[in-house]
Formats: sequence, structure tokens, C-alpha cells
Amino acid sequence: MTSETISRLFSPRSVAVIGASRDPRSVGHQIFHNLLAGGFQGPVYPVNRTARDVASVRAYPSVLDIPDPVDVAIIVVPAPAVLSAVDECGRKGVKGLVIITAGFRETGADGAAREARLADLLDKYGMRAIGPNCMGILNKNPDVRLNATFSPATNVKHGKTAFVSQSGALGMAILDQAADLGLGLSYFASLGNKTNVSTNDLLAVWADDPQVDLILLYLENFGNPRKFIQLARAITPNKPIIAVKSGRTAAGARAAGSHTGALAEGDAIIEALFEQCGVIRAQSIQELFEHARVFSRASAPRGRRVGIVTNSGGPAIMATDALLARDLQLAELTEETMKRLRAALLPEASVANPVDVIAGGGATDIRAAIEAVASDPNVDALIVIYTPPVFVDDVAVSRAILDAKRGDKPLLACVLGKDSGGSAFHLLTEGGLPTYVFPESAVRALAALVRHTEWHQRPTGHVLPISGARPDEASAILQRAQASGAEWLDPDDATRLIECYGVSVARSKRVTTPTEAAEAAASIGGPVVLKAIAPGLVHKSDAGGVDLKVVDAAESYRKMSAGLTERGYAMEGALVQARIPRGHEILVGMAGDPKFGPLLAFGLGGIFVEILKDVSFRLAPLTDEDAKRMVRSIRAWPLLEGARGNAAADVPAIEDALLRVSALVSAHPSIRELEINPLIVGEPGHGAVAADARVRIWPAGIMPRAAAVTRELATH
Amino acid sequence: MTSETISRLFSPRSVAVIGASRDPRSVGHQIFHNLLAGGFQGPVYPVNRTARDVASVRAYPSVLDIPDPVDVAIIVVPAPAVLSAVDECGRKGVKGLVIITAGFRETGADGAAREARLADLLDKYGMRAIGPNCMGILNKNPDVRLNATFSPATNVKHGKTAFVSQSGALGMAILDQAADLGLGLSYFASLGNKTNVSTNDLLAVWADDPQVDLILLYLENFGNPRKFIQLARAITPNKPIIAVKSGRTAAGARAAGSHTGALAEGDAIIEALFEQCGVIRAQSIQELFEHARVFSRASAPRGRRVGIVTNSGGPAIMATDALLARDLQLAELTEETMKRLRAALLPEASVANPVDVIAGGGATDIRAAIEAVASDPNVDALIVIYTPPVFVDDVAVSRAILDAKRGDKPLLACVLGKDSGGSAFHLLTEGGLPTYVFPESAVRALAALVRHTEWHQRPTGHVLPISGARPDEASAILQRAQASGAEWLDPDDATRLIECYGVSVARSKRVTTPTEAAEAAASIGGPVVLKAIAPGLVHKSDAGGVDLKVVDAAESYRKMSAGLTERGYAMEGALVQARIPRGHEILVGMAGDPKFGPLLAFGLGGIFVEILKDVSFRLAPLTDEDAKRMVRSIRAWPLLEGARGNAAADVPAIEDALLRVSALVSAHPSIRELEINPLIVGEPGHGAVAADARVRIWPAGIMPRAAAVTRELATH
Repeated sequence: MTSETISRLFSPRSVAVIGASRDPRSVGHQIFHNLLAGGFQGPVYPVNRTARDVASVRAYPSVLDIPDPVDVAIIVVPAPAVLSAVDECGRKGVKGLVIITAGFRETGADGAAREARLADLLDKYGMRAIGPNCMGILNKNPDVRLNATFSPATNVKHGKTAFVSQSGALGMAILDQAADLGLGLSYFASLGNKTNVSTNDLLAVWADDPQVDLILLYLENFGNPRKFIQLARAITPNKPIIAVKSGRTAAGARAAGSHTGALAEGDAIIEALFEQCGVIRAQSIQELFEHARVFSRASAPRGRRVGIVTNSGGPAIMATDALLARDLQLAELTEETMKRLRAALLPEASVANPVDVIAGGGATDIRAAIEAVASDPNVDALIVIYTPPVFVDDVAVSRAILDAKRGDKPLLACVLGKDSGGSAFHLLTEGGLPTYVFPESAVRALAALVRHTEWHQRPTGHVLPISGARPDEASAILQRAQASGAEWLDPDDATRLIECYGVSVARSKRVTTPTEAAEAAASIGGPVVLKAIAPGLVHKSDAGGVDLKVVDAAESYRKMSAGLTERGYAMEGALVQARIPRGHEILVGMAGDPKFGPLLAFGLGGIFVEILKDVSFRLAPLTDEDAKRMVRSIRAWPLLEGARGNAAADVPAIEDALLRVSALVSAHPSIRELEINPLIVGEPGHGAVAADARVRIWPAGIMPRAAAVTRELATH
Repeated sequence: MTSETISRLFSPRSVAVIGASRDPRSVGHQIFHNLLAGGFQGPVYPVNRTARDVASVRAYPSVLDIPDPVDVAIIVVPAPAVLSAVDECGRKGVKGLVIITAGFRETGADGAAREARLADLLDKYGMRAIGPNCMGILNKNPDVRLNATFSPATNVKHGKTAFVSQSGALGMAILDQAADLGLGLSYFASLGNKTNVSTNDLLAVWADDPQVDLILLYLENFGNPRKFIQLARAITPNKPIIAVKSGRTAAGARAAGSHTGALAEGDAIIEALFEQCGVIRAQSIQELFEHARVFSRASAPRGRRVGIVTNSGGPAIMATDALLARDLQLAELTEETMKRLRAALLPEASVANPVDVIAGGGATDIRAAIEAVASDPNVDALIVIYTPPVFVDDVAVSRAILDAKRGDKPLLACVLGKDSGGSAFHLLTEGGLPTYVFPESAVRALAALVRHTEWHQRPTGHVLPISGARPDEASAILQRAQASGAEWLDPDDATRLIECYGVSVARSKRVTTPTEAAEAAASIGGPVVLKAIAPGLVHKSDAGGVDLKVVDAAESYRKMSAGLTERGYAMEGALVQARIPRGHEILVGMAGDPKFGPLLAFGLGGIFVEILKDVSFRLAPLTDEDAKRMVRSIRAWPLLEGARGNAAADVPAIEDALLRVSALVSAHPSIRELEINPLIVGEPGHGAVAADARVRIWPAGIMPRAAAVTRELATH
């Protein structure tokens, strides 16, 4: 029902422009003009308080005066007049609005108040509105032809790419570039303040719209990232989503209470989010366009082996460099292919990959080379690089490239030399090939396509139930701590909490005197370690709050207490803990973001995390596959495999711990940060034991917005 | 004298085109046509065996028939006719040639033989020749106007940028793009096979040419990289050099005998080389052009603090992200500046950096904003981002940006929206501002400019003499080993060799029986370690060939020998070595490249080098400053400073060891690889001791080409 209203916003049967103006230098005029010039397939009614006609079309003083039904109204009146215009639309029965006018939340408190009233009005009438403070929407479907933007957008072609931009200015640039590159659009929307219609709303509609094959996003922030994950996971297997997310550094100011918290600052959440839902991240608008060309036009490659056909050496070398830098491979051609090439090409041509038909090789040579390379079983994708030599017929070469048989293998073209190559570039683009000027751009785009294909071939895994979890006991621990007003769980509670979800913890006792320490050591038996408990003590080992080589526990306790006092800490007690046999030291952590929910972190302990920042992140809840990939995506992964004669680690035990922590934090949104550091991991089959755990909680009564959706995802 | 001949090649008083053709579809015709159409300031003589005239100009059957002197001949006859044409030029007294014709080394053995004969002929007559297999040269100086290429290059403007390309195809692209971007060229050369004139030859000439302010290079390989370093070091303080080096991965096949050797594969040498001589490396042709625009047009910034002026939010966020990703800073504006901005701009404008004049802010606002930000003492450089809104006067805005007073602070412009912004983009470019479409491009270029400026502000340091070096003793060790036909020095010799240059080595004795091992341990006194000597044993500790915890040396020897036998190694003996107190384990290594000379490597030992590849490289000889930067440029550097409560390392001792190894390998080119692993480094003031050294040598009689130049650099 609501998604139908949004669909209708882009495909109205009639449109009113409230604020259509006679002044050709005004936005109100330009939009009205663009609707007419774009050939909208229905009536467009100008609404103007005073004018009898606008651009030769009969005008109405109010939307209420229009004698026919109006599906969508475009509102361009000054900010103070917006609310009454919206109210009139509501009374008229208009269901969809595009509010171009600025002067809302983005301008301060008065604007924010106006925006709140606007939201209420929209709810009251059940209207859906794009904006305010946006540059409008576009539907290139020939049955609709809606250009409700203030860009003329005359060159934009009809196609199957839909584009949402949070920035109007970038929207302008996008429409211009799309035209230049022959990228065909179905829909475009500039969302402005996203008061009523969000990116997620559009994704939900476009998921099932046959007019959309590819979705491009320019995002500055997320409204509901958890909902975004759900939608994107469902969409990306069928329709790639390419996104630019800017404002990477905006999060910098969050206060962090643990390594995990500090590491999770900045961009890690966004990377994890896109990775987990199969969204392709472009690093810039330029990359967005480069990628879009290949995703809208090329078939999926079967692997990473690339064949290059070129008529000049230098650019092929650059392409090869770029391939290897992006983990693609230079295909090794079969003897048969090379024989075929040798027969077809000039004697000076190079028949090994990259295949160089040389400058003297014309249209016939290039076509023969593409066909031979495409039919090679060792080749998954092709790049053809054409540098127009003097006096070679660009049209014939372009034809040859377009006509060459290549089965279903993707082919990307690269035309160097813009002026002299202009015609080949445009012929190939118009012929439907993803075409680039620089070899690096083609390779970058192909690499994104390969990654995307591989992503969707991998199993996504499942969020599995955790055996032996005791959620009620965990809730009780957390509630008691919240009730006491504590920010951090005390160490006993922290370890008991993770034990509730089946994470093994080293046997330990809490003590408050040297004598108790000695007794505890005796009762635990075997070697023990001593860890201080002191208010404000965060990095224990730095401050001398950890003794890993206890001989006499009472003596250790006394020394530690004295040392901490000297450093300004009051030692309230200590944990006496069974010393765990040596193993890999691992950090498993979680930082809760009020909007994104729990972000899990994994890395090797100590300097790997703190100096080298070698950490992988995923949003909870993890699937079993998420956990596997998370462990394998740190640089130091070979160490866990037993590189260089070191002992291998019990990797399934690490994955298990990650899944248990994921389940814990997903089920208990009052956990704000959690860090197991170290988790001591034995050799394969020997399991993993937490030596220390720290848990920070939200104050009672604060329930992060993301919690509900996290739970929902956990059961999906 | 020879450099004068090369200068004359670009500024001849008369030119002959040997192979000038009447067929308008031939290169011989095109070049002749381009010389005339380009307005060459002197006579151009067509040479054609049979034609009476070419393009209405009287032709000659041979260069010998031309009645006037000829400075330069362009040769475009078929390959088999090249040598006789060159011989005739020699007899005529022509001093400079541009040989366009292909069919030499690049086509196989016959071509290589022809090229060798060509080289001899050139030597015989003392001629200098560009090519063969090239696309020609260009001189845009209005006094010369030489277009001896087969590109029409009609749009290329005169300026002070010189460009050498090793690829003809990229040359074409380059000329096209230069025209598009308004990059003014003085010279362009496509060097082809570099038989006689190299990149270094041109650098030597352009170093003192007032027509050249900026040098761009596209390189696929180096002829004499050591000479390149010398030239580039002298040039870059005055004239920036920006280079694209492709073929990064070509070196992959070299056989390496140590960690250092393996790590030095690929691109490390090139990175080190450019870093050491202040050449700016562009990662692609696109980046080359982006960088060139700012280097040819902007003044040097005083620091990293960037002020942004924009008329739209989204692009400014993207610019901010890009700034921070490239280690630039968003300038913090003073209260005064913000007050000034508040007074000048619309009430909705944002007066903190990035300063957003908003879409409603016109030419006056943008100008006021630039002037206020430029006058802020906290701002070192400016980026102005302009997204042309509808109906705003692009000409007025462009004028305002160009006219805004900004002292000597660099200003880069960014115009989003190509179609609607086309005129602003071109007006700003023509007005002399480095102008980009995407904010990331502008930031990338500015970051390169900042890096370049900082590089040349830092001291370069000196190659200092090494105290207490015993070069004769080192030579004797190496000669004896070479004479014995050994590939690797035996462990005794290896440690003695590094001791000759003052590197401390742990006291050790070589033993061949368990009994000797026990005696050696007793004579060294204190704790010892035992290290196996066995043919073919490279990674000793992996194979159980190292015992760091010797209790009974005889017993250790027996066990080690048995273990190695089991693994297929025959233990010939062992080193008994004083156990060094714990410290940071460091790798200092060298891999000799026959062309580039010795490449030094530095990193923390063990997994840091082997798994994390956290290694820095420099070419020998090191200056004292090189050594300092080398140590500080690994990711793990904070560990040596004593991060997280660990002991700090004696960093001067590491630098000293690097300088000593640098001196050793520079003075003794027969060293092929060298690796000290580990060098055990104590706390500050406690020095560094090598625990193990391995040295590989070149076979007797092989003296790498680079050796002579390395020596020369060492004394400079």
C-alpha cells in the first residue's frame, strides 16, 4: 500500500507544479518547463497565486482549483508557504509530493520545527513526499517521461539503472555524467532531508520493479542501517547495488572505552555493513560511474582470469599492472589459441597474453584476436585496448570489436586518445560495451564485477541457534548492573555473562586481601595469574595490574597493590585465575552503535590490534559464514594456520566464540561494549579460553533503536 | 657537446623527411604534413626516391641531393632501407635523427641485428638519434614550432612542461589529453627503442633549459637507473618530475635466496628509487595529468592545512574525506575569519571549514569566501568547489574565483557537472587554475604537491664515511670465496665480513663435533646458542637447526644433527654463539640488482617481515637521513619507540648498522645478497648485535653494471 504510493510518485497520471513561475530565471519556472519539455505523458497543471497562465499553460491559484484529479504535486513555493500548500494537497487528495523548497531542518531550529509540522501533515493525510530541500525526481520510462527536476537532463537515456542521491549538487553532476557515458537511467531521485521518503523506501520499491536492473546510491548518512541490510541482502543477488558513502570521518567524536570501541571509530562500520550485504562500495563518484558501466552492460565472469587484446604495448602493460594489483590474473592462453592467433595476425604480433595485434593490425586482426581469446577455456573475461593509429578506420574497428563473437564472456573496452579516438569511444559506448579511456578504470570496474560475482556465489550462511545459552541468567546480570547504575560490569559479572553464552573462561576467584589470594591460588590448584581490580583501571597490564608469573599469590597481591597505589589507583581486590597454557592471544570485541547496532571485532591480541590495527569487523548477528570470513580476513591470518613452524590455532573454536558473542550481544541490547582480551586459543582441537572480559552497559532506560531490528535479523 | 647535439635535435634550423610520401594515408606523408601545418620556422625538405614533389614541395631523391645544410632528418622509410638512409645522413653531415620506422629489436633477432648495426653507424658519424620505433618529437616554442610526430597535435599549447613517453600509443593519448586540459608543453618525445637517446639524456638537457619547468615521464623500464638518480636528485629541487612507471610486475621471476631477496621482488626498487630522488610517482596516466595540472600552475603550500570553499554540501564532504585519507588537514578557521564570513555570506551559509556559501551564494559570495579563507593564517592551501546551479552566471563566478586575492597560497578548483558546468571548467582552466571535475582528483593532486614541497624542505643528508672500516680485509674474504666457487659465504666468513664494517656480531665458534661444541661453550662462557651448518639449509629455525636454550652443548649438537638427518640435511658442523640478551629482533638485508645496484631492506624480524611484509627499502648508498627515514617508515615503528609499555629500542644503533651495511655493499659489488637476521637491538644506549648473517656472492667475473655508478654516488 505505502510502496504503491511511492511507485505512483514516479509514475503519476497527472502533475501539479505549485509555485510554477512566469520568471524564466526561477526554479519554479524551470521545473514546469522541464516537465513539458521532457514530454510528460499526462497533464501538468501550473499553480500560481496570481498568474493566469505559465509558459502558455492555463494556471490555477490553488491546487484545490484544479478541476481534475492530481496524482503528484511538485512544491516550489517559498518555505513559509509550503505547509499550507501541503495542506491543500492533502485536502485535494494528492497522494505524492516532491518538495523542492529548502529552508527546513538544514537551516536551524525554526526550520526543524517547520519540518516536524510538515511530517505531521504528511502523516495526517497519508501522503508520501520526497524532500524537502531536494532537486527532484526523474522517470525515463517512455510511458511516463517525468522530469520533475530543475536540470534539463535532455541527454539522459532510458535504461535500467536507478539512482538515489542524498546530495542535490551531486545529483546534477550525476545526470550530466550519465548522459556523457551513455548510462541509461530508469529513475533518479534527489532525496534532500529524507523527512518522509528514505533510501530504504525506494530500495523496497525497486526490488521488484522490472524497470530496475542496477541501483546506484550516493549516501551521506544512514537513517535505518539495519533495515538497509535486510533490503540490500534481498536485492543484491538479483540487482547489484553500487554505493558511494561519504562523510567517512564524521563519526570520529564518539567516546570509546575499549580497544574495540576505539578501533570501531570511523569507517569500519560502513565497510562491514556493505561487505555483509553484498553492496559494492565505490570510493568516489568517478568509480561509481566506472563500475556502473560494467554492471549495467557486462555478463558475470566465471573467474579471475583476464585476456587482454591490444594494438599497442604500453597501455597493455598498464592494464596488466592494474590487474595484478587488484588480484585478478593474466590468463594463460592455450597452445591452440596461440596457434590460431599466429595464423590470423601479423608476424610481428604478440600471441601470448596480452595479445598485441600491433598498430598495423586493423579491424580484421582485432576481431580475430578477440574471438580466439574469448574461445580460450582459460579466459574468463576480456579487455580490449584500442589506441587509434593514424588513418585506421575507427568505424570499422569499432564494428569489429562489437561484432566479435565472445560467448557470454564479459568484454570491456578501452580507447586511448580522446580526440583522435573520440569516435571509437562513442561508437563502442553506443554499441553497448562498457568503454573507458584509461586501462586502470576498466580493470577497477572488472575487479568490482568479479568480486560481486564471487560474493554471490559464496554461501551466506545462517544465524544458528547457540547451544546451551542461558539468556535469562544473562539478562539478570545485566539488569542488576543497570539497576546499580554501573557503567562497567565488575569482572566477576563480566566473565559470568559470557559464560552464559558458552564462552569458556579461565577458572578464577575474586579476592580482596593477600591472604585470600593465597587461599584462592591453593583451591584453584596449579599455576595461577593475578589481575587487579581497581576503579578506572582500563589498560591493566600497562599499569602493572597483571602478574602472569605468580609464585606466591599473597606476595604478588601485596606488590601489585603497592605499585598501583603509586600510580594513583586504589586496588579494591584482584582475580586469581588458573594460568591458561600458552596459545594464540586473540581479541574478540563488540562496540555497540546506537543506530547500527553491535559491531563485532576480531584480531590477534596485543600489538596486532593496538599498533598494526589488523582487525576485521562485522555487524551482529553473524552467520556461520560471516564468522569464517571474519577470522580469515586479517593480515595475520597465516599465523593462525601455523605459518613458519608456529603452532596452528583451533580456528573453529575462534569462530565458535565469535558466534557466541554475536548471539549474546544481539539478544542483550543493553551491552554497549564487550571485549574478551585475550581469548587464549590452543592448537586444533584444544579449544579457546577467555582470560579476561570487560563489559560496558548502557544506562538503564536507554534502548538503542537498532536493537529491535537486530533481533529480527537474528531470527531471519 | 653531446647535450648540445640533443638540444639541436629539438631546435633544428632545417629538417629533412626521408620517406616523405605522396600517399595521404601514409605516416611519411602525415609527418611531412604536420611539420608544414605546424608552422616549422625553417625549411622542410621532402626526400623521396621517385616523386618530384610531395604536398606541393619540391622533393629530393636522397638527402645528399639537398643543396642546403640539414640539421635533423626524420626517417620514415621501411626498415630495410633505414641503414642506408642513416649512412647518407652521416655523409651529409646531419647531426640529429628521429627514426620513426619500426622493425628493430622489438621484432626479434633479425631486427636486433639491424639495431646493433644502426647503433654502430650512429657512433661512427657522431650522430644522436631518437627511436627507432617511435612516434616522433615536438617542440612548441614559437621560435621553432617543430611537430615531427604523426599526431596532428593541433590543440597542444605552448607551455613549460616537457614530456617523455616510452610508449608511442600513450604518447598519442598524452597529446590529446594535454590539449583537452590546457596543459602547455614545451617538448614532447616518444623514445621508442632508446637505441641512442635515453630518458637520462633528455633529463640532462632539460635540467638547464629555461623552457622547462616541469617534467613528465612515462617509463616502462630503466636503462641506467643509477644515472637517473643522480640526474633526478639534481633536477627535482628546481623542477618537479612526475613519473608513471608501468611494468611493475615484470621483475617477478628473479630467483631470491633470502627473505630480503624475496621481499625486494617487484615494485620495491622503483618505490625506493623515486622516494630517494624526490620524483613524484603517479599511479596511472590519469593521475599524471591530474598532478601535472597542479604542479604546472600552483605555488608551493606552506603546510597541510586546507581550506575548502563550496556552494554545495555533498562534494565538500567528499573532499573532506579525501583530504583526511591523504593525511592532509581540514584547516581550523580563526574566529576573525568566521566573523568576516558571517558578515559577507547569506545567513544560511556555513562559515566553518568547509565554508558553504550555499547554492544561493553567487559570484560575490564565492569571491568574498575565498579571500577570507585565503587570508586566514591557519590555511595553507585552498580548494574551491563549484556546482553550477541553474541560472547562475558561470562567467561571473569564474571571474570571481580567478580574481579573488589569495596571496601566494595555492588554489585548486573543482567544477562538478560537466555539461552545465562546462563553461566554468574551461574558463577556470584557461584562466590558469588547476581545475578538476571530481573533488578526489583535486585532493590527490594537492596531496602530491604537499608531499613534494615537504620532501624538498627536508634535509637529504650525507653519505658519511664509516669509522673503522677494513675494506681490504672484506675484499680478501670475498675474493677467496669467489675463487672457491661458493655461492654463499660460510657462516664464519659472513660474520667476519660484516665485522669488517663495524657491525657487532655475537661471539661465536665453529665446531664440528659434540665434544668441540662443549669446549666452545665453555670457552665462550655464559649462556650460548647453537646453530646448525648444513648444505642447503636456508630457513634454519624452521628445520630445527637452531637451539636457543642450550643447557648441554654436546647433547644439543647430537640432537640437532639427528633431527636434521631425519629431514634430509647433512649437518657439517655448527656455530656455538654467545646468547645475546633479549631485545628487539631486526632484519637488515640487501638484495643486489644487476641494474639498480644494492637495495637495502629493514624491518622487524620474524612474522613482521615474513607474514606482514612490513619492510622499508632504500637503494644504497644511504645518507644518514635515508637511514633515519627508513627506520621510521615501517608500520611497526611505534614498537621501537617503546609503545604500550614495551622497552624502546636503541634506534641510533639500528641506523648505524644500516649505514655500515650500506657502505659494505656499496664498496663490494660482488655481494649479491646479505641478510642480518636477527640483529638484536637493546634498549637506548645498549647497541645492537648481529646474531646471524648470511651473504651470497656473484660468481667470479660478473661485475654488475650498477657497481661503478654506486661507487660514484657513494662519494658524492
